Amino acid sequence: MGTVTVPPWKQLLLSALESNAHLRHSSYFQLATIGSNGRPSNRTVVFRGFQEDNDKIQINTDCRTRKIEELKHCPFAEICWYFTDSWEQFRINGTVDIIDGSNSDPTKLQQRENSWFSGSLRSRLQYLGPNPGLPILSEQPSKEVSPDPSTGPVEAFCLLVLDPHQVDYLNLKSNQRLTFTSTPSPNGEKSWTSERVNP
Amino acid sequence: MGTVTVPPWKQLLLSALESNAHLRHSSYFQLATIGSNGRPSNRTVVFRGFQEDNDKIQINTDCRTRKIEELKHCPFAEICWYFTDSWEQFRINGTVDIIDGSNSDPTKLQQRENSWFSGSLRSRLQYLGPNPGLPILSEQPSKEVSPDPSTGPVEAFCLLVLDPHQVDYLNLKSNQRLTFTSTPSPNGEKSWTSERVNP
Repeated sequence: MGTVTVPPWKQLLLSALESNAHLRHSSYFQLATIGSNGRPSNRTVVFRGFQEDNDKIQINTDCRTRKIEELKHCPFAEICWYFTDSWEQFRINGTVDIIDGSNSDPTKLQQRENSWFSGSLRSRLQYLGPNPGLPILSEQPSKEVSPDPSTGPVEAFCLLVLDPHQVDYLNLKSNQRLTFTSTPSPNGEKSWTSERVNP
Repeated sequence: MGTVTVPPWKQLLLSALESNAHLRHSSYFQLATIGSNGRPSNRTVVFRGFQEDNDKIQINTDCRTRKIEELKHCPFAEICWYFTDSWEQFRINGTVDIIDGSNSDPTKLQQRENSWFSGSLRSRLQYLGPNPGLPILSEQPSKEVSPDPSTGPVEAFCLLVLDPHQVDYLNLKSNQRLTFTSTPSPNGEKSWTSERVNP
């Protein structure tokens, strides 16, 4: 068994999450992708934790949102995560794996199911609502559907997993900036190097 | 003289700025662009107001940052602006005009100068510092330079002006979402239409 080394930027991120934990929005970040028209696209999403034992970042989303077609077209994304209390910014770029119900990998399907069950019952409801981003067809409120708490993920539920390649860390209090770059090592693990750069 | 109509999304944005004004970070948003490698790029920048009498959004930046070469390569950008107190999100996409000291348009050079002088003396200092994003060459603190308050913009100072094409507004308290789309009208003014869409 090799020793598991926590990437240095992940340690900084975990500390930032802790010191900003009193703010509800500290788990929100902005995810930039490239639209099908070749133009940038940017929206707020919620951090759903790291994958167990590694540095991959999980996001829940609806299969019917535009980001899914965008990521199918171009799997690269950059997270910009600004912590409003500690004045720290993390820019994390990498590739995104889309895990929907049609995925053929049983391990990934299990991850999707775990992510579904770790969300609240209320958060699961939105995946039963009308197609996000489409015009509202009816003024009538949609019927209240209450899913069975034991029912697994519905079709529209999708887990996104971002595999970080590079991280740019900026601390506006200390005015320090660090870039972290990964290189794949022979055993499949990434190794990270860091460099101090001008803010 | 025609009547000047404030675009409906601008009114919403001005209200959001007012109701979140007690938070320093309410003027920060994330700007996504496309990197020279074709991958998305995303960072926090500061809102420097609208251009007088229109809906164009001003941002100050350093000519030496990567976003400048990115925008020269691809002028499209998307702002994602989340207001943490009122739970409102504005996604604003459009094209960005880069106004540096070499610009040939006297009106634009004047706008750049105005933007320079409306920043604090302290904020002007950063444009005299070492090249942002490059490795730190010396452990010695850089000499304190104090610019003359009456001196105009230094070479590294750049004004970005984003001309909005489309705005996606989401209110997480009321769970309402609106998209605003502009079409150019014959007199050069934009006209805006809006549509309620599913959140």
